Amino acid sequence: MSVQIRPTAAATSSSRLAVADCDIHPAVRAETDLDPWLSQRWRDHRTTFNAGRRIGMQAGPAYPKSQPNASRRDAQPPEGGRQGSSLSFMQIQHLDPNNVKLGILNPLGSGQGMSNPDLSAAICHATNEWQLAEWTGKDRRLKASVVVPYEDAAASAAEIRLWAGHPDFVQVLVLSRTAEPLGNRRYWPIYEAAAEANLPVAVHAFGYGGSPITSTGWPSHYIEEMTGHAQSSQAGLTSLVIEGVFERFPDLRMIMVEAGFAWAPSLMWRLDKAWKTLRAETPHLKLSPSEYIRRQVWWTTQPMEEPDPREHLLDTIGWIGWDRLLFATDYPHWDFDDPAHVLPLKISEAQRQQFLIGNAQAVYGMVA
Amino acid sequence: MSVQIRPTAAATSSSRLAVADCDIHPAVRAETDLDPWLSQRWRDHRTTFNAGRRIGMQAGPAYPKSQPNASRRDAQPPEGGRQGSSLSFMQIQHLDPNNVKLGILNPLGSGQGMSNPDLSAAICHATNEWQLAEWTGKDRRLKASVVVPYEDAAASAAEIRLWAGHPDFVQVLVLSRTAEPLGNRRYWPIYEAAAEANLPVAVHAFGYGGSPITSTGWPSHYIEEMTGHAQSSQAGLTSLVIEGVFERFPDLRMIMVEAGFAWAPSLMWRLDKAWKTLRAETPHLKLSPSEYIRRQVWWTTQPMEEPDPREHLLDTIGWIGWDRLLFATDYPHWDFDDPAHVLPLKISEAQRQQFLIGNAQAVYGMVA
Repeated sequence: MSVQIRPTAAATSSSRLAVADCDIHPAVRAETDLDPWLSQRWRDHRTTFNAGRRIGMQAGPAYPKSQPNASRRDAQPPEGGRQGSSLSFMQIQHLDPNNVKLGILNPLGSGQGMSNPDLSAAICHATNEWQLAEWTGKDRRLKASVVVPYEDAAASAAEIRLWAGHPDFVQVLVLSRTAEPLGNRRYWPIYEAAAEANLPVAVHAFGYGGSPITSTGWPSHYIEEMTGHAQSSQAGLTSLVIEGVFERFPDLRMIMVEAGFAWAPSLMWRLDKAWKTLRAETPHLKLSPSEYIRRQVWWTTQPMEEPDPREHLLDTIGWIGWDRLLFATDYPHWDFDDPAHVLPLKISEAQRQQFLIGNAQAVYGMVA
Repeated sequence: MSVQIRPTAAATSSSRLAVADCDIHPAVRAETDLDPWLSQRWRDHRTTFNAGRRIGMQAGPAYPKSQPNASRRDAQPPEGGRQGSSLSFMQIQHLDPNNVKLGILNPLGSGQGMSNPDLSAAICHATNEWQLAEWTGKDRRLKASVVVPYEDAAASAAEIRLWAGHPDFVQVLVLSRTAEPLGNRRYWPIYEAAAEANLPVAVHAFGYGGSPITSTGWPSHYIEEMTGHAQSSQAGLTSLVIEGVFERFPDLRMIMVEAGFAWAPSLMWRLDKAWKTLRAETPHLKLSPSEYIRRQVWWTTQPMEEPDPREHLLDTIGWIGWDRLLFATDYPHWDFDDPAHVLPLKISEAQRQQFLIGNAQAVYGMVA
C-alpha cells in the first residue's frame, strides 16, 4: 500500500466504523528529542558512551541485532525522520482515514530492559514526558502508556505512582522478554502499583532479557524469532498465572500485545490439564488457570492470525470471548492490520463494534 | 485409578477397539540391565563416575532436578522394580486389557543428550540391544525406537544405519530440548539416515540442552515446565520448517510426541503469516510452512488437551487432519490417557478406528 491511495480511504472515513487502535508506535525524530527531560548527566552519558535511545534495544547473539526494518516504507514522513515520528503525518495517513477515535501509544526502544538501571529509568521517564508534550497534548485521540524500567521494579512502581490519575496515561507498558519470567516476585511491585492506579498492564512482545527466544538456543532466521514471540508470551502468561499474580491482584487487568491470540485456547487447555494433576504444587491458586486468564487478560489482534478457511478464527475468538479482543494496527510497522479488512467474517454489527472499539473503551475505563 | 479395577477392563477387552499405543516407556530394572551390551570400559566408568543410566537426565538449575515422580503408583510391578520395568506386568495392566495391537517403545533416560558423546553413544546402543532382547523379542506387539545420541549426529546416523531394515525398529527417537534448535544443520545427518532407512523421526518432549524452558529464564514451578514443553516443541518444529529440513528431505516423516497438538493450528497460521511477508529470507523454502507440516508431520495425542466444551477439539483436529493423530497413553506415566475415554466426541467409527490404530499403521508402514 502507498501514501497515494490513502486520500481515497479518507474520503470514506465518515462512513467507517470508529476504531480504537491499541498499538501505535510513536518514535523520536532524533536522539536529542528527549533532551528536555534528561538531566545533564544523561545527555553527557549519551555523548560519551553512545548510549543513546537505540542502545535500549540490547542484542543477543542473533536477534534483534540483524532484524529487518520493522516499519512500512510508505510511513516515512514527507518532512523526513523515522516512521512514526511525525504526528501530522500519522494523522493524515492513519488516524483520520481509519477513523481512529482512541489510539494507544506504545513507545518501543524507550530504555526498557537496559543494563544500566539508572539510565533505563531516566530514558523511560523522559519518554513519558515526551508522550504528553509531543503527542497526547496535541491530539486528544491519543493516550499514553507509562513506560517503566521493568527490571527495576521499585523504580517502575515510582514512575507509575508519579502518573497515577493523569488522564492522558491509560496503561503501563512492559515487554515480554524480561530477565526472568514475568510472574516472578521481583516484578510484583509493578503489578501492585498498576492495580492501585487502576491501570492495565500491557505486555508487548519483544525486548531482550538475556535468554534465547527458544528453549534450545538461538534460531538462524528472523521468521523463527517472529514466530517465537508467541511462545515467549505463552511462557510469560503461564508464569503470571502459576506464580499467583492474578490471585494476588484480582483487579489487575493484563493486555497481551502483538503476540497473536490464537494460541490462547490451547495454552489454557494445557494449563488447566497440568494444574488439575499438579495443583498440590500451587496451593496459592484458588481458581483454574483459564479462570484467571478469562477474568483478567485481554488480547490485541495484531498480528491477526489468518487461518484458511478463516472461519476457524470464529471458533478461536468464541473461546477467548468477543469481549476480550482489542483491535490494533501496529502502525507504522510493516505487519499493519487494516481495520477495513481485518475481520472478513460473518459477525454481527454489535460484535464488530465491540471488537473495533467497545472492548478497548471498557478495558481502559473510557466512556463510549 | 488402581490396579484392582483393571481386571474389569480386561474382561471387556475383546469387545474393545484395537489400539496402537505410540508412546510406551519401558524402563530398566537396575542400572546393570544394560551391562550385557556395554563394554568393560563403560561398566567401569559407571562405577567410577556414578555415570549410570540416570545421569543421562542432565539437570538445569531448576528442572528436571526437582521434577515429581512421573509414573503412576499403580504401575509398580508386584515383583518390585521401577514402573515400566516389567513386561509381564505391562501385559497384564495395559497391553491386554486395552487391546493394544501395536505398542511403540520410547525408552527415556537412555543416554540421549549426555555431555560425554562416547558414553551417550554407548548407552544408546545398549538400550537398542536391550529393547530387542527384553521387549520386542518377547512380545510381538511391541516395536522399538532407534535411540540415538542426537548431539553427535554422525554417531546417530551410524546407529540408525546399523538397524535400518530390522523389522523390530519402526522409528528413530530424539528429544525436543536439544542443544541447538532441531532444524539446525548439525542434526541433518540424523534426518538423512532416517529418511534413507524409511524410519519416521519421533521428537519426544523433554531432554535438556542447556537453555531454560522459557525465553525469559527458569520458571519456579513444575507446572510451568510441563506447560513449557509445548512451547519448546513449537520452537523445534518452527526450526525444522524454516531451516528447510522438510524441503531437503521430502520423504521424511516426523512425529511430535507428548507435547500436545492443539497448538498446531495457531502455530501454522502464525508461521504462514510471517513467511508470506518475510519469505525473501528463506528462498530455500518452496512451500508455505503449513504445507510442509501437513505433508510430513504427525502428532501423538497424549497429553490430550481437554477444552470445555470438548467439541472445540473437533475443530482443532479437523484443521490438523484426522489422518495425522496417533493415539498414545504415555504408560506408565501419571498423565496416562485411557483409550476407552480419551475421545468422548461424536465422531464416526471410521474416524475412531483411524485415530486409535489406522493412522499409526500408516505412518509406520504396517499392514492393517
